[in-house]
Amino acid sequence: MAGSPRRAASRRLQLPLLCLLFQGATTILFAIFVRYNHETDAALWHWGNHSNANNEFYFRYPSFQDVHAMVFVGFGFLMVFLQRYGFSSVGFTFLLAAFALQWSTLVQGFLHSFYSGHIHIGIESMINADFCAGAVLISFGAILGKTGPPQLLLMTLLEVALFGINEFVLLNLLGVRDAGGSMTIHTFGAYFGLFLSRILYRPQLEKSKHRQSSIYHSDLFAMIGTIFLWIFWPSFNSAPTSLGDTQHRTALNTYYSLTASTLSTFALSALVSGDGRLDMPILESKFKIQDTCGIHNLHGMPGVLGALLGVLVAGLSTHDAYGDGLESVFPLIAKGQRSATSQAIHQLFGLFVTLVLATVGGSLGGLLLKLPCLDAPPDSQCYEDQIYWEVPGEYENEVQGPLSVEEPDTRA
Amino acid sequence: MAGSPRRAASRRLQLPLLCLLFQGATTILFAIFVRYNHETDAALWHWGNHSNANNEFYFRYPSFQDVHAMVFVGFGFLMVFLQRYGFSSVGFTFLLAAFALQWSTLVQGFLHSFYSGHIHIGIESMINADFCAGAVLISFGAILGKTGPPQLLLMTLLEVALFGINEFVLLNLLGVRDAGGSMTIHTFGAYFGLFLSRILYRPQLEKSKHRQSSIYHSDLFAMIGTIFLWIFWPSFNSAPTSLGDTQHRTALNTYYSLTASTLSTFALSALVSGDGRLDMPILESKFKIQDTCGIHNLHGMPGVLGALLGVLVAGLSTHDAYGDGLESVFPLIAKGQRSATSQAIHQLFGLFVTLVLATVGGSLGGLLLKLPCLDAPPDSQCYEDQIYWEVPGEYENEVQGPLSVEEPDTRA
Amino acid sequence: MAGSPRRAASRRLQLPLLCLLFQGATTILFAIFVRYNHETDAALWHWGNHSNANNEFYFRYPSFQDVHAMVFVGFGFLMVFLQRYGFSSVGFTFLLAAFALQWSTLVQGFLHSFYSGHIHIGIESMINADFCAGAVLISFGAILGKTGPPQLLLMTLLEVALFGINEFVLLNLLGVRDAGGSMTIHTFGAYFGLFLSRILYRPQLEKSKHRQSSIYHSDLFAMIGTIFLWIFWPSFNSAPTSLGDTQHRTALNTYYSLTASTLSTFALSALVSGDGRLDMPILESKFKIQDTCGIHNLHGMPGVLGALLGVLVAGLSTHDAYGDGLESVFPLIAKGQRSATSQAIHQLFGLFVTLVLATVGGSLGGLLLKLPCLDAPPDSQCYEDQIYWEVPGEYENEVQGPLSVEEPDTRA
Repeated sequence: MAGSPRRAASRRLQLPLLCLLFQGATTILFAIFVRYNHETDAALWHWGNHSNANNEFYFRYPSFQDVHAMVFVGFGFLMVFLQRYGFSSVGFTFLLAAFALQWSTLVQGFLHSFYSGHIHIGIESMINADFCAGAVLISFGAILGKTGPPQLLLMTLLEVALFGINEFVLLNLLGVRDAGGSMTIHTFGAYFGLFLSRILYRPQLEKSKHRQSSIYHSDLFAMIGTIFLWIFWPSFNSAPTSLGDTQHRTALNTYYSLTASTLSTFALSALVSGDGRLDMPILESKFKIQDTCGIHNLHGMPGVLGALLGVLVAGLSTHDAYGDGLESVFPLIAKGQRSATSQAIHQLFGLFVTLVLATVGGSLGGLLLKLPCLDAPPDSQCYEDQIYWEVPGEYENEVQGPLSVEEPDTRA
Repeated sequence: MAGSPRRAASRRLQLPLLCLLFQGATTILFAIFVRYNHETDAALWHWGNHSNANNEFYFRYPSFQDVHAMVFVGFGFLMVFLQRYGFSSVGFTFLLAAFALQWSTLVQGFLHSFYSGHIHIGIESMINADFCAGAVLISFGAILGKTGPPQLLLMTLLEVALFGINEFVLLNLLGVRDAGGSMTIHTFGAYFGLFLSRILYRPQLEKSKHRQSSIYHSDLFAMIGTIFLWIFWPSFNSAPTSLGDTQHRTALNTYYSLTASTLSTFALSALVSGDGRLDMPILESKFKIQDTCGIHNLHGMPGVLGALLGVLVAGLSTHDAYGDGLESVFPLIAKGQRSATSQAIHQLFGLFVTLVLATVGGSLGGLLLKLPCLDAPPDSQCYEDQIYWEVPGEYENEVQGPLSVEEPDTRA
Repeated sequence: MAGSPRRAASRRLQLPLLCLLFQGATTILFAIFVRYNHETDAALWHWGNHSNANNEFYFRYPSFQDVHAMVFVGFGFLMVFLQRYGFSSVGFTFLLAAFALQWSTLVQGFLHSFYSGHIHIGIESMINADFCAGAVLISFGAILGKTGPPQLLLMTLLEVALFGINEFVLLNLLGVRDAGGSMTIHTFGAYFGLFLSRILYRPQLEKSKHRQSSIYHSDLFAMIGTIFLWIFWPSFNSAPTSLGDTQHRTALNTYYSLTASTLSTFALSALVSGDGRLDMPILESKFKIQDTCGIHNLHGMPGVLGALLGVLVAGLSTHDAYGDGLESVFPLIAKGQRSATSQAIHQLFGLFVTLVLATVGGSLGGLLLKLPCLDAPPDSQCYEDQIYWEVPGEYENEVQGPLSVEEPDTRA
């Protein structure tokens, strides 16, 4: 495709070599550095003589599984709306997430749970790794259909590292509270992806425009993704919080916020459209050119709004409202180390750091992905499963008719 | 549609205005009345000095999430079998459930957890709200495709209120036990929907009959719904029970009952059909005219049978069979306040109250929805996504061919 | 179809009669033998005066539900890739699993939890029953599309009994540890199915070959199955383990093993294919003739490899590595009743027993299913929903063209 046999041979080898290289390196790093933590190590746990009911596993595993389903079913199928890109959407979600889960365990481990020469892991490592994979998949949404798997793996390599650094700066250095991952996940993932997509801008992409649309059944698959993201959101927000009332309260708040925003979304969708008809609720709407999944509306703006709301809440937090529970919500205020105003300023600065790291990182990522040795799909082949996957023969009749005329050599 | 530009403009505004009105009122009522309960409030929980493992959240949240998946994935996709109504089935499920979850939290809260001037909420409120949403979606199944979203929102407004009253009368005033929601959810939801549908009877609806059928892939989507309802039923029945052995036993009983009824269903389905072939197991079968999803077979009759079985079990319950556990199954018998026979009579009266409230309420609902200002889809446009949703252009080729000729005025 | 009216009448009655017979017998056996265990019986649990938090239910129910979703959503939809066999794949999965869950509760109950004249059941019975259903569905994958439901029910009857015996010999008599069910589930299910399929070999089956392929949207449905199997695998492996650190560690190990094998699979898939394109990751690839779902690659070889790895791990296990936790991993070594080498030999012998029972049992099963009174689909009707299910009329246009009379001209 798109040129010489040499390039074709290069593409043939790039993906398997990158996979083997990344997996090999990750495996070696795991062997050297990663150890079970106090709750997963047989000797340590039994030495401590704990009650099994108090193992962290039982407090967090159900929420973890919901988050895990969001990442793979939710994100994977949300992107299936592209009529000819379903295999890639689900398949590359698997590939990127599988790498991100391992690589972020290492990055986050070095920054958060490294002691005695080792990273110590348990159920919280799995939740945090899935969060980082979520940010990577948000960025993936901005460049869906326009990038090949080797490019996507390199993006993941860079983004996971920057994600870990940003999170460390916010949570550990600035003492910021980031409810629901507004800053670390949504804002960071969205602006990293958007700036990366801007660098990769291609004026000729309209050639593939007819494949950027959905068809009836591909939209139904995408709704599976939407529903999974919606129903498990309370678990997403409550999975990493303090145990007890905080986890309970976070799930409850998310649940009712989602219901309220659903009604508002229906109202807006009907008001905005010319003829009163609804578009698939906001999660799938408004695909801007070059932002395939519309992640700016979906994650970018909501993330920034959430972060600003966090600034407000921090500024208004008092011991009266939270009682002894203030300790688990804004511990630095509770301990008297910080005033509410100071906490609010730190929150705002956290948002600023996130935006800087995301935009600079995304731009660097874009430059990296433009390296000529990396094989991007040609303009006429974007949003098309067939250059990456063996596709059943009936495909052409089932979707929108045969491939268009400007691609006469595709299947010859 | 169906006439003048004025009506078209009216429809354009009805849905967003109703959404904003309902959401606005709900939000104000939440702000005034709703407070965290003892397990979700930071100050109250920490003041009590509880062990985190004893927070109700950990006993019920996994079951809640299963119920939540049943309501949105299960009911949502079960109704996707209609070949041209998939967007509406999933989308309106979202809309109705999102409103029902909030509104029923208020109604049930006033009736069950109102003290010191406030409603107090926690994980049990979420479970109960999802149960009420389940009843609303059962009723929705009876009028699927024949009603517009403003009508459906008004139905929800009425049904949630009556659902709360019925439940209060049964559980609090009559001391009835309602295992699996046989009466409060299935019987109430089914007969409310059926009587509402009867009032909305339209003799000319056969005009849309060709769209009431399914196609191969829409049936596969509906199977996703069926499976989710089936696998999570043990959670549905066990989510609201007493903790410990009762919750355990309820999940177990549901699990084995489902397997037994599956084999029986296969046997009956093969015997009943003329040629020994199977129809999609009973959950999707037998669409009676005007009862789009066949909710009478699916919820109405099973609900009544379950209620009658409850009468029988109550009449036979003895301290010998349950030991000290009788306290959590039939507490009034255990405390000696009621004989087994008296409990059985109360159970039977509970069924009677449910049927009266459901049929009267459903009939009133039907009259309400017939108000001329509410815009119902015209006969020729029933079971059709296109009047409510932006549908991808390929839709017409993908499903059963272009819209038929007798509907020339649809989009003019 | 395929012959005389008498055969047609026979087919009409075989399935319902078998269903009613099996369900009737199972119900009677349950009534006679099955009782609640200590954690599900109201009287026993309350007599013990336990804390509700310690009821086994709360430690295992979330993992159980994940396993349950794997069995029904995962296996059910994984097999939907056949373009004209979606109803049968999901429907027969329901039928076989519903019978296997009950029958294996009896078989496993007699072998593992029979005392005082009764089988005692609780959440662990449900998990173990789902595991056995998993093995049956693995075998089903080998003969998918080539067997009718009465044959499949008889296969289930035989396989569940042998599964129980094999598991009893391994776990109770030989003291073998079988992490992740490598031997008892994957190896046993795969070789039972493969030998059964070999006995049922039909040289003329290429007549139906064009229906063995997938189409674009059937592959997307199959991906739903794949994802559910992938995301819940940590629950599958950790559901039956000892509580506390062991369950935690098992989930963690499975999670990271899956991510690593995903990257390796992408690498191999891209290397192996001629042109560098990917096939749907290994779970769906390589359909060998007569092994419809390719279960040899998917379960057989991985199961044997896992078992051999277990031999290695047992041989190397020391008290230094596990501390007091060795008790829960290799209890016989911990108690000094067995050396590490002796445990390794027992593990190897367990694999041998499994292979013998699976191959002999599968061959016997094949002979049983060849009984002329059992109605197998004719060669020209294999992989075809229409002989078992009422299929919507549009089906023919939607998939690959109309059914031909004896199908000589199908693709001409």
